[in-house]
Amino acid sequence: MRIFTFDTTLRDGTQGEAVAFSVEDKLIIAQKLDELGIDYIEGGWPGSNPRDKEFFARARELKLKHAKLTAFGSTRFARNRVDQDPNVRQLLEAGTPVVSIFGKSWDLHTQRALGITEEENLALIGETVGYIKDHGKEVVYDAEHFFDGYCGNPDFALRTLEAAQKAGAAVLCLCDTNGGMIPSRLVEIVAEVRKRFDGILGIHCHNDSDVAVANTLAAVEAGVTHVQGCFNGYGERCGNANMCSILANLELKLGHTTIGPDKLAQLTSVARFIAELANLSVRNDQPYVGRSAFAHKGGVHVSAVLKDSATYEHVKPDTVGNRQRVLLSDLSGRSNILYKLKQHGLMDRLDDASHRELLERIKHMEFMGYELEAAEGTFELLVREALHPGTNLFDVVNYEVTTKGGAKDSQTIATVTLKAQDGIHSATANGHGPVNALDLCLRQCLSQLYPAIKEVKLMDYKVRVIDSKKGTAAKVRVLIEWSDHKRSWATVGVSDNVITASWHALVDAIKLELMRLMEKDDTLEKAVEDYCWGV
Amino acid sequence: MRIFTFDTTLRDGTQGEAVAFSVEDKLIIAQKLDELGIDYIEGGWPGSNPRDKEFFARARELKLKHAKLTAFGSTRFARNRVDQDPNVRQLLEAGTPVVSIFGKSWDLHTQRALGITEEENLALIGETVGYIKDHGKEVVYDAEHFFDGYCGNPDFALRTLEAAQKAGAAVLCLCDTNGGMIPSRLVEIVAEVRKRFDGILGIHCHNDSDVAVANTLAAVEAGVTHVQGCFNGYGERCGNANMCSILANLELKLGHTTIGPDKLAQLTSVARFIAELANLSVRNDQPYVGRSAFAHKGGVHVSAVLKDSATYEHVKPDTVGNRQRVLLSDLSGRSNILYKLKQHGLMDRLDDASHRELLERIKHMEFMGYELEAAEGTFELLVREALHPGTNLFDVVNYEVTTKGGAKDSQTIATVTLKAQDGIHSATANGHGPVNALDLCLRQCLSQLYPAIKEVKLMDYKVRVIDSKKGTAAKVRVLIEWSDHKRSWATVGVSDNVITASWHALVDAIKLELMRLMEKDDTLEKAVEDYCWGV
Repeated sequence: MRIFTFDTTLRDGTQGEAVAFSVEDKLIIAQKLDELGIDYIEGGWPGSNPRDKEFFARARELKLKHAKLTAFGSTRFARNRVDQDPNVRQLLEAGTPVVSIFGKSWDLHTQRALGITEEENLALIGETVGYIKDHGKEVVYDAEHFFDGYCGNPDFALRTLEAAQKAGAAVLCLCDTNGGMIPSRLVEIVAEVRKRFDGILGIHCHNDSDVAVANTLAAVEAGVTHVQGCFNGYGERCGNANMCSILANLELKLGHTTIGPDKLAQLTSVARFIAELANLSVRNDQPYVGRSAFAHKGGVHVSAVLKDSATYEHVKPDTVGNRQRVLLSDLSGRSNILYKLKQHGLMDRLDDASHRELLERIKHMEFMGYELEAAEGTFELLVREALHPGTNLFDVVNYEVTTKGGAKDSQTIATVTLKAQDGIHSATANGHGPVNALDLCLRQCLSQLYPAIKEVKLMDYKVRVIDSKKGTAAKVRVLIEWSDHKRSWATVGVSDNVITASWHALVDAIKLELMRLMEKDDTLEKAVEDYCWGV
Repeated sequence: MRIFTFDTTLRDGTQGEAVAFSVEDKLIIAQKLDELGIDYIEGGWPGSNPRDKEFFARARELKLKHAKLTAFGSTRFARNRVDQDPNVRQLLEAGTPVVSIFGKSWDLHTQRALGITEEENLALIGETVGYIKDHGKEVVYDAEHFFDGYCGNPDFALRTLEAAQKAGAAVLCLCDTNGGMIPSRLVEIVAEVRKRFDGILGIHCHNDSDVAVANTLAAVEAGVTHVQGCFNGYGERCGNANMCSILANLELKLGHTTIGPDKLAQLTSVARFIAELANLSVRNDQPYVGRSAFAHKGGVHVSAVLKDSATYEHVKPDTVGNRQRVLLSDLSGRSNILYKLKQHGLMDRLDDASHRELLERIKHMEFMGYELEAAEGTFELLVREALHPGTNLFDVVNYEVTTKGGAKDSQTIATVTLKAQDGIHSATANGHGPVNALDLCLRQCLSQLYPAIKEVKLMDYKVRVIDSKKGTAAKVRVLIEWSDHKRSWATVGVSDNVITASWHALVDAIKLELMRLMEKDDTLEKAVEDYCWGV
């Protein structure tokens, strides 16, 4: 069956604590959602803030091919005539073909939040929906708190729907605003509503009980044909129902049509694109679109997946534009590495001796506490070194880093001496901290010989103690994440000295950059990229 | 109804890409889960890796009050006799009262992964369960891929359950191993199984379709009384069903009994504690236990919530040990602190001036990027200092720490000069790293004046970048966890220099120890402890 998709990432999604989009971001996202085949794009609440108002003004320039842009707002204020209500006027001025109006379905809210009678509330709903409909708009009626309202006073809740439908609402959307519903109860209520109302019913769920996607699917199974959600599950508190999961489940599990299989194959890239604009990353474990969604770590799983991917994958990753990944760890080890090398034809490029040596090095490093599954940069360096035995970019002669502090200030100075093919290089630099100072020295030492080295930036720096038994003498693992604006990778160092561990991670990162510069080997790059990001 | 809880954070949870626990971590978590009232704690797979084997060896020292420790493993290998199978032997050697055994329910797996006949598979299951049961163990039978298996070949899948039950399994646990099931379909299958089998049925779900929690609840509604899951939803690929959400939903939404309401009020602190050990943060938007789970941002929501919290909160935050937050400004942090001080009667002990100063300091520190919720030691120090204004234990004159390295070795030396009430003290020490060296110097400087200072040990050291936009010059937060064998606390330092940040956390820890030595005030200790872990 055709299920209509209503995306509210740009409206309800921005209520998420960490989510903030500029007007520019919102315009780009609207374009992306249109390309993906979303039916309705709720762009904001023009009456609530200047940014949303500006968005609708500028959205007139958008050339949407498929989606209907939607402006969101409330029923008129109780004391205003509908044709004189500023909120309603701004909704019309937004110039969208569709307007969504939310009204109160819960007597608790009507009494406590609005302080009006039931009849007054019905009038607010009917007049607002009717007025906007009369101005040529398609009206989606959002029955706020519908389920809580129904549980408390079903008659009241149902009468609000009736008022909206009589006034001409095209969709009656049932909202679990507080996210407190459990599917079994929600579905009973949806079925009751379905019995009493013709026309299109919608569903809008929040994830406070961790079942928003399931509630959405259950509602569809009970006859709802309009689904609301946000990309990556953004939204107030615990977020809205995750549109990515809804689309994939409706298409792949329930046999419905939303954006269709061709567009669905873009799901992962759109989800990551939107996350990028929100300056958030897609959660690794996010269903369907996360980096780990089709990643295999356990040895049993890996060996079975190699025989038949259906053994541990519920759908084919490419149906949603994602990819299978095999991770390295002490739980799986050797066979995973072999698999990766084989898969990309690298086994043949390594002779027996260097192949064995690579495996030995990896095994030894993991034993020492390195975590190569998180440090794809270090893994890539190991493979590159194994492919080019004897390559010696530089030797470390020595390094020294000192931090001096008093009661208030502190400063750090580092000195590094390297031996490269053109001789000895030394550099001294002040830094914001030891990693920064050492990084500056390293780059300074190498810049003459390798001028291209510069474009890489430290993105994240994480330290954790591996074995806490030894107190301040415990072994630590340092993970540094790097980016060159096109892609990211991480390198790792382990030592009982946090500076030494950081130094190892730094040197590995620099060596990797140089190896990449020296060898433009696309096969390898591709292979390693696959390994690293799986995307 | 009483529903039994089976936590597999320490086994299936560690299959999560980013999740890694040391043996030490696993022991501490097992203790915590026991205190929370979890019924079964699956500690690992002793046959799969040395770390899990060591865990079970050391777990004999644990004094669990309620939970049954469980070892996980597979049915015997097809070619082995059950009494000669190394995996089975290691399961018995783990010395746990409960053993969980997974077997194949899916003909696809039996044929492709194991390459054996149906009859051989039934023999593996029956013999392994029977043999372990005969050795006095309670056996939980995990029917791997049960739902996929049932969909493909229901007879085959049901016969595997029959084999396990006949052989004496106490629980038949139905696993959605690939996480591909949708609740409506899953519940039909569970109902079929419920009709055919007496005894305890269990459910084990994965979140690949974003409905693992809903599937678990649906299974309970269909007659399952044993639920498996992982804290914070850790686990392979998209994770296992989130135990936090399962517990809260079963208790608060479906009226069942799991850990009971008193323990449920510790849910948030246990979830955060486990995340801390994993060096991950609890997702802000994680249902029930995330920082944003009861946070209100929208203006409409905030004003309604202030009138009546039920208007936008599905449950009361304190039922799960979380709290309401209002995201208007950093003033909300302030009122929370006030609330805590009041609650423990400390407001009266602070005069107006020192009270205002304490609030100002906390506000300033949070603005700088300190996270006092995780750093209860630093918070305790602030309160103690406010209670005793003018106390000056020592002043830092200066410190210096240098790490020198060559191609292989490295060494760190530090010098610290302090001014205490008996004069100037200097010390120089070699350490395993800068934190160790500085710590040694500090203690050496203070040991004459305060001989009692010694018993505290660094347990963990964590570094995170707060603002990654600035590359290696980014600001970092250092969290150091300490223990005196009776309890643990953490101190925090923030700086753009990791050494300076560590130094601040170190000095705070030392000052706190001294303040504690000087004042044996149990009320305060209790209050601060509550603040720290009850949040």
